[in-house]
Amino acid sequence: MTMSNESSPRLRHLLDLVSLPASRMDALLRRAQAFADGAQAPTALAGVAVCTLFFEPSTRTRLSFQLAAQRLGAYILNFDASTSSVTKGETDLDTFRTLQAMGARGIVIRHRIDGAVAALAAAANPDVAVFNAGDGRSHHPTQGLLDMLTLRQAKGEDFSKLKVLIVGDVKHSRVARSDLHALRALGCGEIRVCGPASLLPEDDTLAGCQVSHDFDAALDGVDVVMMLRLQRERMAEGLVASLEDYHRDYGLTAARLRRAAPDAVVMHPGPMNRGIEITDEVADGPQSRVLTQVANGVAVRMAVLEAALAPA
Amino acid sequence: MTMSNESSPRLRHLLDLVSLPASRMDALLRRAQAFADGAQAPTALAGVAVCTLFFEPSTRTRLSFQLAAQRLGAYILNFDASTSSVTKGETDLDTFRTLQAMGARGIVIRHRIDGAVAALAAAANPDVAVFNAGDGRSHHPTQGLLDMLTLRQAKGEDFSKLKVLIVGDVKHSRVARSDLHALRALGCGEIRVCGPASLLPEDDTLAGCQVSHDFDAALDGVDVVMMLRLQRERMAEGLVASLEDYHRDYGLTAARLRRAAPDAVVMHPGPMNRGIEITDEVADGPQSRVLTQVANGVAVRMAVLEAALAPA
Amino acid sequence: MTMSNESSPRLRHLLDLVSLPASRMDALLRRAQAFADGAQAPTALAGVAVCTLFFEPSTRTRLSFQLAAQRLGAYILNFDASTSSVTKGETDLDTFRTLQAMGARGIVIRHRIDGAVAALAAAANPDVAVFNAGDGRSHHPTQGLLDMLTLRQAKGEDFSKLKVLIVGDVKHSRVARSDLHALRALGCGEIRVCGPASLLPEDDTLAGCQVSHDFDAALDGVDVVMMLRLQRERMAEGLVASLEDYHRDYGLTAARLRRAAPDAVVMHPGPMNRGIEITDEVADGPQSRVLTQVANGVAVRMAVLEAALAPA
Repeated sequence: MTMSNESSPRLRHLLDLVSLPASRMDALLRRAQAFADGAQAPTALAGVAVCTLFFEPSTRTRLSFQLAAQRLGAYILNFDASTSSVTKGETDLDTFRTLQAMGARGIVIRHRIDGAVAALAAAANPDVAVFNAGDGRSHHPTQGLLDMLTLRQAKGEDFSKLKVLIVGDVKHSRVARSDLHALRALGCGEIRVCGPASLLPEDDTLAGCQVSHDFDAALDGVDVVMMLRLQRERMAEGLVASLEDYHRDYGLTAARLRRAAPDAVVMHPGPMNRGIEITDEVADGPQSRVLTQVANGVAVRMAVLEAALAPA
Repeated sequence: MTMSNESSPRLRHLLDLVSLPASRMDALLRRAQAFADGAQAPTALAGVAVCTLFFEPSTRTRLSFQLAAQRLGAYILNFDASTSSVTKGETDLDTFRTLQAMGARGIVIRHRIDGAVAALAAAANPDVAVFNAGDGRSHHPTQGLLDMLTLRQAKGEDFSKLKVLIVGDVKHSRVARSDLHALRALGCGEIRVCGPASLLPEDDTLAGCQVSHDFDAALDGVDVVMMLRLQRERMAEGLVASLEDYHRDYGLTAARLRRAAPDAVVMHPGPMNRGIEITDEVADGPQSRVLTQVANGVAVRMAVLEAALAPA
Repeated sequence: MTMSNESSPRLRHLLDLVSLPASRMDALLRRAQAFADGAQAPTALAGVAVCTLFFEPSTRTRLSFQLAAQRLGAYILNFDASTSSVTKGETDLDTFRTLQAMGARGIVIRHRIDGAVAALAAAANPDVAVFNAGDGRSHHPTQGLLDMLTLRQAKGEDFSKLKVLIVGDVKHSRVARSDLHALRALGCGEIRVCGPASLLPEDDTLAGCQVSHDFDAALDGVDVVMMLRLQRERMAEGLVASLEDYHRDYGLTAARLRRAAPDAVVMHPGPMNRGIEITDEVADGPQSRVLTQVANGVAVRMAVLEAALAPA
C-alpha cells in the first residue's frame, strides 16, 4: 500500500524532462496513449481552474493545453502577458501570484527567458502546479513527451536499436533539448544531430550524439528524422546565409528521405516552413507524423494535467 | 425508415446558401425558430470541440457562434489568425489541419479571400464540419439564414408576394449575396436592389432583380428594407464621393421609410453606421428588426451546429 | 413572507457603492465571506451567459469576473472593445444592445469615461444586469467591496474605531472613491487621506477625511494603510516631479510602516509598482494583504453575480 503510493506520487510540476524519472515518463506516456486511444475523464478536473500565462505568444500550444484541460472538465482561463500593456509594469512574479490568489490550480507558462518558468514555480503554493510550455532555449517538456509518444506508436517501446536524427537549429531549440533529454531517458540506441555549425550548440547539449554537417550522410539508415523549424530571424542574425542555401543543405526532400530506412518516419514540431526545412511532398507524405504529433499533444497534456491536478 | 434518413442526412458543412437545398434551409429555419422560442439542447454537443478560426477579425460573429456552441454544451476554442504573428508563416491549410488534429469537430472560419473557406473544407476529415462565417465578398450563409428567419417572423413563411429591397454596397457584400441566394430559394416575389452604380455588381449577382439608383422610387411599397453597412474605405477607393452625399442619396430616414408599405420592416446586419446609411430614428424605431436579427443569429447558429455535429 | 422578499430583492445592477444600501452591502459581504470560506454554488448560474465588455484593457479584473462566473456555472464570453477595429465605429450603446440581443444576462463593463457604465445600464433589458468593472475616475464597486471584505477579515466587522489611511493619487482613482464610499457606509471611525496636493481632488470627494501631505505624520497609529498605484503618466502630465521624489515622499517602506499601529495591515489594489509606491519588504511582508485582496475579489464577484443573476 505504502509502496504503491510511493511509486506513484502526484506530479508536482512539469518543468523539464531532465528531472523527470524514467518511470514517471513511462507512466505519463502510457496514460497519454490511453487518451489517444479514446479514454475519457470528463470530470477528472471538475472545479479546477487552469490558467495559461504566456509571456511569449503561441496560439497552438495554448490551444492544445486548453483543449486538454477542457476534456478533463477544468475551467480554463487565459492571461495573455505577451503585450506589455497587460501587466502595466507588474513583475512576472506578481502576475503569477495574482493568478494563484485568484484560485488557479494549474498554471501553464511560456516565457522567453531560460529558467523563468522554474523560477515562478519555486514560488508556487503547495496546491498549485506549474506546467512549462516552453522557456527560452531550454525546455519544452510536453513537446518532448508528445514526440516520444509519437515515436512509440511508430516504432514500439524499445528504443535501444533506434537511430534518430535531429536536423536544424538545435542551438536555439527548446524542442530539440527536450527531445534529447527524453531520448536519452528512454534509452535511444543512436542519436544523430545535423545542421550548420552556426546553429549547433557548443556546450554539452550534444554529449553522446553523433554530430554532422552533412545532411545526406547523416540520414543514412535512420529510423526517425526530427526536423526543426528555421526561425527567419536566423538570417538577420547572420547565422544562415539564405533560405535557399538552407533548403539546399538542410531541407528534407523526398529524394533525401530515401537515404533513411524504408520505414523511417518524419516529425516536425510545427508550424512548418514549407519549402525551407521541409518540402510539401515530405510534409504531406506517408512517412510524415506531423499531424499525429499534434493529436498526441492533446493526449500528453491531458495525462500531465491529470497527474498533477486530479484528486488522489 | 430509409426514406427518413435520406431526407434528413446530417449537414456536412455550411459553406454557402447556393448549394443548400430549400428543404434543408426550411428545416434549419424551423429548428432555429424553436431555439428562438426557447427550446434547449444543453447537451446536444457535449464533448464536442468547436473552434473559431478567423483570418479576418469579427468579434460579433465569433461571439454569436461561441454562444450558440456553448448553449449546445460544446467546448469552445478560439484561434485568432487575424494577426500574422500567430501563424508564423504557416499556411492556412496547415493551421486548419492542426485544429483538426487537436480534435476540433466543428471549425468556424472567416477569411478575406473568396473561396478560401470552401478550399479548407475540402481538406476536412470526414468527422469534421466547416462553417463559413464569411469569405471575401462571396458568402455569409448564417447571416442569410438569420435574415430569412427574421423575415419569416415578420411576414410569414410565404414569400411569394413579398417585395424586398436591398440597399447599398451590394458589390462588396457577402451579406447581400447570401440574402439574394436565400430569397430566391424561398421564392421571394420581388427583389429590388438599389445603390450607386459604383457599388452595384456588374456580373450576374443581380439576375432577376429590379435594379435602381433612385432610393426613393425603389422604396415604393416594399415590405422589407435590408440596409447594408457602408465600409468607410469605399471613399478612399473613390467609389463614394462623401459620407454626406451617400447619406443624402442612400441613407434611410424616417421620411423615406414612409414610402415603403406601412408595416414594412427594416433590417441591417450591423454594425451600423448611424447617420450614414441609417438614421437613429429608423434604427431605433418600431419598424427596425436589427436586434431581432442579432438574437436570431444565435438561434440559427445553434440549428446549424446541431445539424452538422450532434450525434444521429 | 412579503417582508422577506422586500428585504432581499434581487440586485438590479452594481454600478457604484453610493447607491448601495448598507444592508445590501453587508449581505453581499457575508455571502462573499462564505465563498471565501469555501462555499460552492456550481450551478447557481447554469445556463446564464455572462459577457465581459471592456472598453479599456484590464486582464486582472476581467479574469477575476470570469473565474467568479465560471465557479457559478455560467457561460463566459469576452468582447474586447479596447481596440477600435473591433467595433468598427459602432456606438457603445449598439455594442451593448448587441450583447443583450445575443442573450447575455450579465454584462461586466469597464469604460474610461465617467458615467459611461451607468449610461449603458440605463438601456438594459429588465432581465439583464450590468456590473461596473470601473468607469473613469468614478467607481469600481467590486474593488471597494473586496477591500471591505479584506478589512473585515483583518479587523472585524465593527469599523467604528478603525483608523484607515489612503495614500497616493486619489484624484484619478476610482478605487479610492469606491473605498471612501464603502468606508463611510460601514461607519469607519477615522479616514485619513495623504498625497501630494497635485494628486488630491479638490471637490467634495474627501469630505469628512483628514487630509495631509505629510505621509509620516499621517501614518501615526493607523490600523490600515491603503496604497494606490501611481500611474506613470502622472509624470508626463507634470503632476509628479519624478518617481524618485514620489517614492521618497509617498513610498511605503518598512521603516515608515512602523509608525502605524503594530498590527496595521497594508493593502494595494494591484498591479504594484514595486520600489515606487511600495517596497518589496512591505509588499511581501507579514502585514501585506495584497494577495488576500485578490482572492477576495473572486469571492466578492461571485456574491455580486449570484445576487443579480441567480434564479429567485
